[in-house]
Amino acid sequence: MAGTDSTQTTLDENSITGGPVIILVKPQLGENIGMVTRAMLNNGLTELRLVKPRDGWPNPAAEASAAGAIEVLENAKVFETTQEAVADLHKVYATTARTRDMTKPVAVPHHAAKEMRTFDQSSQKVGVLFGPEKAGLHNDDVVLADTVISVPLNPKFSSLNLAQAVLLISYEWYQLGVNVPDQELILGSSPLAIKGELVNFYERLEAALDESGFLWPPEKRPNMVRNLRNIFQRAHLTDQEVNTLHGVVKTLRLGPRVQSKSKK
Amino acid sequence: MAGTDSTQTTLDENSITGGPVIILVKPQLGENIGMVTRAMLNNGLTELRLVKPRDGWPNPAAEASAAGAIEVLENAKVFETTQEAVADLHKVYATTARTRDMTKPVAVPHHAAKEMRTFDQSSQKVGVLFGPEKAGLHNDDVVLADTVISVPLNPKFSSLNLAQAVLLISYEWYQLGVNVPDQELILGSSPLAIKGELVNFYERLEAALDESGFLWPPEKRPNMVRNLRNIFQRAHLTDQEVNTLHGVVKTLRLGPRVQSKSKK
Repeated sequence: MAGTDSTQTTLDENSITGGPVIILVKPQLGENIGMVTRAMLNNGLTELRLVKPRDGWPNPAAEASAAGAIEVLENAKVFETTQEAVADLHKVYATTARTRDMTKPVAVPHHAAKEMRTFDQSSQKVGVLFGPEKAGLHNDDVVLADTVISVPLNPKFSSLNLAQAVLLISYEWYQLGVNVPDQELILGSSPLAIKGELVNFYERLEAALDESGFLWPPEKRPNMVRNLRNIFQRAHLTDQEVNTLHGVVKTLRLGPRVQSKSKK
Repeated sequence: MAGTDSTQTTLDENSITGGPVIILVKPQLGENIGMVTRAMLNNGLTELRLVKPRDGWPNPAAEASAAGAIEVLENAKVFETTQEAVADLHKVYATTARTRDMTKPVAVPHHAAKEMRTFDQSSQKVGVLFGPEKAGLHNDDVVLADTVISVPLNPKFSSLNLAQAVLLISYEWYQLGVNVPDQELILGSSPLAIKGELVNFYERLEAALDESGFLWPPEKRPNMVRNLRNIFQRAHLTDQEVNTLHGVVKTLRLGPRVQSKSKK
């Protein structure tokens, strides 16, 4: 899906290929830089650029917080200016929470991520600018961007830390590349029961309930049976679970008994 | 959009109403609990529950990292067991990265968030369980959930910290309630130019270029004009920018000149 590779790739290979360059402009805390690398790698991004990191480079605090993402940190490139950091890129996004006195397209992260995927497909190299922790991006850096990304957040409490901002953008990018169903039933060790086995159980249950006088009076029986079948139908039972329920019905029919070792 | 309020609400009011309860089961670090409250409030969620926090409650480390989200922390409720923490909820989700030997629907965050919004609309109270930092949720807690939420992440580096996991789920929930265009052109102080003003500028530019002999030979002129107009068309110019460009053309036509104070 990503990049120039036209062959079918696995999720894993695919996710690690391409994707935006993350560019931190004048980041202040090394710890945040390290946490950014983790948020990136969580989402398959590996290319980090730093413009004038405040505490110099390399930075031991960044290494300490990068943990398993140290490879991203070690491959980070350092630049003197934002202009140099974006020089080889075809498309640049600037993340900012603020409305600027500037005429510029502003996109939500999901939309920007979709655009990035299309740029990936046409081999256009993309980068995303993130400003320093306190001040955010300077207008001179925002001008270098084609589009501003603004994350819609609670207007009364909208400040994200640097690594969280990188996480959300990277997450949106990664999600568009994964091939995971929206929702699926994960099965344990047993397959789903086939419908014939379900009906077999329903009929045994209903026979037992007929014997006990539960499905009474007769004119109410059809509706009671439908309601009961619906309960179990909604449970998406496995083979094993149907067996368990057969055992439950069988045992309950025997009524309360003194526990016996010979009982199966 | 959310909850039982049928009147039209603003984005702000709407976003703060309803939404899932965040339930941290046996959280370990107070700092993480504080950061969870910030991730929640960023996304308009305010109801936090804690099951047996390791370091007791209240926790000064949580207060220190909650910063502006201290109101969420102060309203947090503490429970002895997960069963008690979910007792008043209609729907429960469990977040876990692991495939469990358990038959249970597994959803991606975006899908789960859509479900939560529909539950909101029918006044069903929803909660999301997050396990302790290291071990994740115990199977006995996962059983209490209707659906597992699993975040698709780089399989080689999939561990998120607690606050980041809460951030992603809360973010997906919040995004479904905001009414923000996918992308829009944010204007500065000047409105967009109307097409008549654009054509007026195009014609002045082309007249100047005709005079200079740039639009030559005549058979190539139509295509050159179209290409030039396209450049400016794509820029979505404002009134002010069109005026600036008129000035640029006018000044360039005068050719290189010694700077003069009288020059306008």
